Amino acid sequence: MKTLSELSKDELLELKKNLEKEYNDEKSKGISLDMSRGKPSAEQLSLSNDMLDIITKESNLNTETGMDIRNYGSLDGINEAKRLMAGILEVDTENIIVCGNASLNVMYDTIARAMIFGVLDSTPWCKLDKVKFLCPVPGYDRHFAICEQFGIEMINIPTNEEGPDMDMIEEYVNNDESVKGVWCVPKFANPSGIVYSDEVVKRFANLKPAAKDFRIFWDNAYCIHDLYYDNKEVKLLNIIDECQKAGNEDIVYEFCSTSKMTFAGAGISAIAASKKNLDSIRKYMSVQTIGFDKANQLRHVRFLKDVENTKNHMKKHAEILRPKFDAVLSVLDSELGGLGIGTWTRPLGGYFISFNALEGCAKDIVAKCKEAGMVLTGAGATYPYKNDPKDSNIRIAPSYPDAEEMKQAAKLFALCVKLVSVDKILSAK
Amino acid sequence: MKTLSELSKDELLELKKNLEKEYNDEKSKGISLDMSRGKPSAEQLSLSNDMLDIITKESNLNTETGMDIRNYGSLDGINEAKRLMAGILEVDTENIIVCGNASLNVMYDTIARAMIFGVLDSTPWCKLDKVKFLCPVPGYDRHFAICEQFGIEMINIPTNEEGPDMDMIEEYVNNDESVKGVWCVPKFANPSGIVYSDEVVKRFANLKPAAKDFRIFWDNAYCIHDLYYDNKEVKLLNIIDECQKAGNEDIVYEFCSTSKMTFAGAGISAIAASKKNLDSIRKYMSVQTIGFDKANQLRHVRFLKDVENTKNHMKKHAEILRPKFDAVLSVLDSELGGLGIGTWTRPLGGYFISFNALEGCAKDIVAKCKEAGMVLTGAGATYPYKNDPKDSNIRIAPSYPDAEEMKQAAKLFALCVKLVSVDKILSAK
Repeated sequence: MKTLSELSKDELLELKKNLEKEYNDEKSKGISLDMSRGKPSAEQLSLSNDMLDIITKESNLNTETGMDIRNYGSLDGINEAKRLMAGILEVDTENIIVCGNASLNVMYDTIARAMIFGVLDSTPWCKLDKVKFLCPVPGYDRHFAICEQFGIEMINIPTNEEGPDMDMIEEYVNNDESVKGVWCVPKFANPSGIVYSDEVVKRFANLKPAAKDFRIFWDNAYCIHDLYYDNKEVKLLNIIDECQKAGNEDIVYEFCSTSKMTFAGAGISAIAASKKNLDSIRKYMSVQTIGFDKANQLRHVRFLKDVENTKNHMKKHAEILRPKFDAVLSVLDSELGGLGIGTWTRPLGGYFISFNALEGCAKDIVAKCKEAGMVLTGAGATYPYKNDPKDSNIRIAPSYPDAEEMKQAAKLFALCVKLVSVDKILSAK
Repeated sequence: MKTLSELSKDELLELKKNLEKEYNDEKSKGISLDMSRGKPSAEQLSLSNDMLDIITKESNLNTETGMDIRNYGSLDGINEAKRLMAGILEVDTENIIVCGNASLNVMYDTIARAMIFGVLDSTPWCKLDKVKFLCPVPGYDRHFAICEQFGIEMINIPTNEEGPDMDMIEEYVNNDESVKGVWCVPKFANPSGIVYSDEVVKRFANLKPAAKDFRIFWDNAYCIHDLYYDNKEVKLLNIIDECQKAGNEDIVYEFCSTSKMTFAGAGISAIAASKKNLDSIRKYMSVQTIGFDKANQLRHVRFLKDVENTKNHMKKHAEILRPKFDAVLSVLDSELGGLGIGTWTRPLGGYFISFNALEGCAKDIVAKCKEAGMVLTGAGATYPYKNDPKDSNIRIAPSYPDAEEMKQAAKLFALCVKLVSVDKILSAK
């Protein structure tokens, strides 16, 4: 089988004609599909519907320490919620603060605090001429949006199957005092799905930052979001442990939430860090709020119970998600395999498949899909400043549509990839 | 009847001996009472217990626009929650953003945004040499704590029965460009319980600030929290309307929450402002969060329904609160009336009674109470920097204990007031 580049001009023109006909047929179907965001499907959300019934007026409305969940109090989370989230992140409860309904909000606030107050008595970042963050790419658009809003300069760091390029990260972090942070999604990275290797986690934990207020923003959004192929879990080395071992315990903030365990819009979130970091956060938080929603914290604890039970719950999510990932991958394999016009990841968990098109094709592919009624994450979104220098990466989010729709969507996607690639190759002939 | 100052030294010494005996008797009872915070009682919280049962897995889990409350989405609140909160604040829904579980958090974030990004493209406050806020006193300690944390200089503004001294406020606001804000609790002010007069509201709405990024922080925390004496409601002029009339619509941010309507720890909050202000807030918020807890928003809408129903619900709170206020006031009247050693407010709503002791006595009174097992809000807490220049004001929070405990607490309080006042008067003889 030939790759498309190996075809003659005439063969390509013939192929293009056929693809265009096919595309016009598809377009005429009036498809409406959204593969743009990593949203759980209604079927997944329904897995947690029992949580809605778990706290009623007949329930014990006190926490285990006798605190009334309906009243004020509990700045950093009720004990049992700390224990649940600590279990999920495999840290001690004293390393956990439980927050409101979104870890994004916690990450944003953590950076806002650093901007205004500094980090553990450092100079507030807003007083500095330049603050830089390292951004492993492709990455999560909402991380980049935070940096952009705060005027933090972002530096692209290439990623391979083991994680970000650690030579480059060490070079920046250990020498440039204006580098204050790095964004990481260490397990089932958004969008590549890769899991950082033990070696990479250890090198993160052993960074020797030039800036004492440098922090690793370890967004462990998919910490227990395995797809459970062959019923297997993927293991990520524990960053909090590794930092402690390295005598570097203040270097990391870890984030997670139950958004993709229970309800995306009504979950609970947590930040894990050293006691010194958390004490500082609590000091500022105590002025920002009296406490987060304890009713929802208790709802989560009574529903999810503990990490073991939560993992069993996550297996039910995996049952729903796996066929959707498989549908996309099987279409990509059969439609694009061997054509030399794209590569894609086969993630073992998380919410995304990352597709790399020929250079200069991603925007056109996304536009073609849109024209036919399918919304994808904007091309470039996976890069800082929405600028993918190669215009190659596209994030595919298979979670929301059903498997049949996903198959249809993947076919349309593959068709658009072929169409745009043929044009690209033709224009170079 | 003589005031204590009119007593002879011998009479005072005799009185002191009796009071000390009485105090020691009280102390030996091992009382444990907390009148420090404006917390609703369990009985009040139970008024909203039905809300816990209102959204179950059998319920319609979609908003009126068909949005699944369990999934991501709705940055600024679901429609029906906007309508509820707009009804309560008597503004249009387009002037409302519904947020998370605490208006304190919304106020904090509003100031944090101004610090980092400025207000409608003004210079970020963190870049200015000096930012000042006007603080009507006595006031709410958590407002002052926000200013203190952000390094905002606070200026005391005396308050009378009509509201803050508006001459002074106009003088500062209209001439000093470094004055960027004023904290107001316009209805049933914390702690004085006063309601701003129409004249005062109009003068606020007609301020001509030297700083274009000056904002009124209108914390309408007790907007429908009347005690309903004689079944009457107290009317506060609508600041949003008045600002519109004055062509000054961008000058105010109004805040409220359901913390003291439903659950103090699990309510919903809102900010009301001009569309221009809200558009700016949404721009920053869209990076901070995907949206707040929609399940809790819908829970509130289905339980509280609309402003009329919510007011009926607030009447039930009033039934519980009124006897507690009455208990305190009747003890203060009978124990301290005519003695010339203190004045106190008779609020028609809200959560506090404000007591003004003889100058230089507040700290000692609070300490005496504490020694006997009763926690009061720290003396000075109602002033910026916890510094009451006259050491006179004490905030009494009658909501949490039951009426019988309140009576006992008020008696102990009155006893401590007398004891400290006698000492004070004696020391001046």
